[in-house]
Amino acid sequence: MACIDLNADLGEGFGRWRLTDDERLLSVVTSANVACGFHAGDAVTMRRVCELAAERGVRIGAQVSYRDLAGFGRRAMDVPPAELAAEVAYQIGALEVFARAAGARVAYVKPHGALYNRVVHDEEQAAAVVDGVLLADAALPVLGLPGSRLLELAGKAGLPAVTEAFADRAYTDAGTLVPRAREGAVVTDPDTVVERSLSLARSGEVVSHTGVRIEVRARSLCLHGDTPGAVELARRVRERLEASGVRVEAFA
Amino acid sequence: MACIDLNADLGEGFGRWRLTDDERLLSVVTSANVACGFHAGDAVTMRRVCELAAERGVRIGAQVSYRDLAGFGRRAMDVPPAELAAEVAYQIGALEVFARAAGARVAYVKPHGALYNRVVHDEEQAAAVVDGVLLADAALPVLGLPGSRLLELAGKAGLPAVTEAFADRAYTDAGTLVPRAREGAVVTDPDTVVERSLSLARSGEVVSHTGVRIEVRARSLCLHGDTPGAVELARRVRERLEASGVRVEAFA
Amino acid sequence: MACIDLNADLGEGFGRWRLTDDERLLSVVTSANVACGFHAGDAVTMRRVCELAAERGVRIGAQVSYRDLAGFGRRAMDVPPAELAAEVAYQIGALEVFARAAGARVAYVKPHGALYNRVVHDEEQAAAVVDGVLLADAALPVLGLPGSRLLELAGKAGLPAVTEAFADRAYTDAGTLVPRAREGAVVTDPDTVVERSLSLARSGEVVSHTGVRIEVRARSLCLHGDTPGAVELARRVRERLEASGVRVEAFA
Amino acid sequence: MACIDLNADLGEGFGRWRLTDDERLLSVVTSANVACGFHAGDAVTMRRVCELAAERGVRIGAQVSYRDLAGFGRRAMDVPPAELAAEVAYQIGALEVFARAAGARVAYVKPHGALYNRVVHDEEQAAAVVDGVLLADAALPVLGLPGSRLLELAGKAGLPAVTEAFADRAYTDAGTLVPRAREGAVVTDPDTVVERSLSLARSGEVVSHTGVRIEVRARSLCLHGDTPGAVELARRVRERLEASGVRVEAFA
Repeated sequence: MACIDLNADLGEGFGRWRLTDDERLLSVVTSANVACGFHAGDAVTMRRVCELAAERGVRIGAQVSYRDLAGFGRRAMDVPPAELAAEVAYQIGALEVFARAAGARVAYVKPHGALYNRVVHDEEQAAAVVDGVLLADAALPVLGLPGSRLLELAGKAGLPAVTEAFADRAYTDAGTLVPRAREGAVVTDPDTVVERSLSLARSGEVVSHTGVRIEVRARSLCLHGDTPGAVELARRVRERLEASGVRVEAFA
Repeated sequence: MACIDLNADLGEGFGRWRLTDDERLLSVVTSANVACGFHAGDAVTMRRVCELAAERGVRIGAQVSYRDLAGFGRRAMDVPPAELAAEVAYQIGALEVFARAAGARVAYVKPHGALYNRVVHDEEQAAAVVDGVLLADAALPVLGLPGSRLLELAGKAGLPAVTEAFADRAYTDAGTLVPRAREGAVVTDPDTVVERSLSLARSGEVVSHTGVRIEVRARSLCLHGDTPGAVELARRVRERLEASGVRVEAFA
Repeated sequence: MACIDLNADLGEGFGRWRLTDDERLLSVVTSANVACGFHAGDAVTMRRVCELAAERGVRIGAQVSYRDLAGFGRRAMDVPPAELAAEVAYQIGALEVFARAAGARVAYVKPHGALYNRVVHDEEQAAAVVDGVLLADAALPVLGLPGSRLLELAGKAGLPAVTEAFADRAYTDAGTLVPRAREGAVVTDPDTVVERSLSLARSGEVVSHTGVRIEVRARSLCLHGDTPGAVELARRVRERLEASGVRVEAFA
Repeated sequence: MACIDLNADLGEGFGRWRLTDDERLLSVVTSANVACGFHAGDAVTMRRVCELAAERGVRIGAQVSYRDLAGFGRRAMDVPPAELAAEVAYQIGALEVFARAAGARVAYVKPHGALYNRVVHDEEQAAAVVDGVLLADAALPVLGLPGSRLLELAGKAGLPAVTEAFADRAYTDAGTLVPRAREGAVVTDPDTVVERSLSLARSGEVVSHTGVRIEVRARSLCLHGDTPGAVELARRVRERLEASGVRVEAFA
């Protein structure tokens, strides 16, 4: 029986500002990537999201980022490895306090934004993120792209490496994501996103942007929650998966 | 046999900037109040200070503050209680990750600067700090002024309340600190500071600014490390205490 | 013929986050209080709001604040006067560059949030804000509450002091605002807000919370733009004023 | 008669932290690169440095940077051009208010740290910096490396492009700086720095790291002020230049 985790970014407001509908998203996903204050996520929001997630049995993950509130963590930065490792650990520790207070634990780490993209190829920064995770907890799973340097180095360091896929992103024939700047990089038709989700979850396959059926093995699907209609689409994805016999549950 | 703890603020640089001679201070004190990133203290510095402290058996404390890098946490802020509690917990959690990585634990919490002064009298903020500590750890000692609302509320909440005194600050006859703005508020003569330290540690007494001998019972003495000659003075205090048969050790 | 200015807070997003519908608000108001980066307002947004305001002939004002992104400038801070004055000037200067680039000028200064409330009574901070304005421009009007220390000190310093009123806030018999914490402090019925606006603009009078007709002379009305329906209400206020023969225009 | 400008970074503290001996440096240099709050430089310091510079007739320049207090502006960032341009303009405007209050003007712009290095080769960011300068003032000189994209694009945009050289940095035979990571990149012997300064100022020549005499034409020499002995060395450079008949004065 096929089994898939659904993850989404949550708690991405800051102070007066809100971005995601955390409450509704938490009724859909099985894993919550919680912003830890560096690209978004004030302490009150982190606490509240952890409480809501724990109540509903949603897994809590640390969504670690470059220190960049003004750019929402979307601007790649040449952070020296020792600084990056320490900043990753800092964020995990800050979130852990709220996860524990809610009776849970930080259960995994996922880099955000520009850092997420960077550690696909950048050996030095990928190693720094792994070092930061190890500082915090030598057994914490890391969530990322299949084939990324991050997951490769996490695995070598003994950290569980968990793969994820995107039902709303186009894939190349080689199984990598079509860069956002290219036309057709984002799949916008809701029905197509739902069907791609099912295909990814059930058969580990998806149709590439050239029309070829390719393999994309992933233990988790990333859903987006910050656009109009996103929560509704996420709910449809989950319903379709469950109606088709896919078990939706957090990775072990 | 008299017994006293010596605490000092450490790790109060940020990025490129340095303030305290952490390495030398750690060879004098028994408790290190480590800045956690809100008034000072970047992640690399927090990590390094924790490692050095753990190596030398110095107790690690979270020096929590208002979020105010520009003002070094010295500007009182009307932070709503829920925000203050969450921000205190956030800081403790961030430091805990480095303490654990160094084989130690965050062993106590001490508010910094304007927050330290505010929770002497402000019921609401004192309660918020206690709530923040409880979020992080229901058994974490809190360090503060004798008679402060903070220690009173910490005690009521079941947290160990640890008193501290200042050998380089003038006291009123009522046993409170002479406000910094008043003349003579700070004792600058090193010999006097050394002797007041001994008196505080051995007999729990000190001469007030009017010349009266008053009682100031404290389990810890706060030493300063951010002025020229401060580390040397701290070392003299410790030597005088030990030469006089006072046991210098962290509070339990 | 009665004449009134309509002002509103604009550009109160930061980076990825948005708060106000700047474009629509700028088709209603005659004066735009532009956030300058300390409580909200990134540089791109400041530039864009200045361009839109200049195109539409809307007056640009510097909405200066405490340095407090996390608290949206709503947490009172004991900022030393020299720091506050310099920070006020800094914000005005930063906005001026975008106003000039758009072919306009910063035409007035209005404190935001906790600073706005503080300088009603706090002599020291009111004087610091005036000092900051004088650093930037010795002829810049200051917008605030009638009877506030801020306007009094601005006037003494030779700065034009411009009064404002709030159609959606309850007033005491003494003509001061009913504190937000008190029940009935905010007038929520749109029709009532529209009629109070007209009364304030045409006769300089409004009904107090005890039902007494009191005098509130103001050259400007502050409209809010950050709640659902706010822009629509603002538009209704303007239409009602103009239909009743009140001239809606920026203060000189 | 040879003529040279001496520039140095000033005001690079932040809040409680200090880095440079601004007062003494201002008695040596003719141009002060003042930090504007993004990598360093609080508003009080900016004001004070502008006052001191104006008193002594030292030219005030805006040392613009990435928004990166934690990294002191030394971490390269992929800031989108529109954001970078607006942030550059913001910083210039903020400094201008203090320059004017001191009876002076911002007289030039020099990028700091990672941004300085990036705009040597990065067309997009160099263009964004030029756009930012143009937003602030269409006639403001830009200071940078000879041959850099920044100076090339500044010149094309009609901004005066001012070249600078470093007496304490090794040069390649091609006239570019030896990267800091390479051995021998920094010239540490004070006497050598003094003689290289004189050679650069008088003949526009310096000996490369392979021993070849190369041409490095620069209108300004950059002196460093943040290391022990730096101010004393800067003073020696100036004295040697003047004693040798070089006129030390700000560029026009």
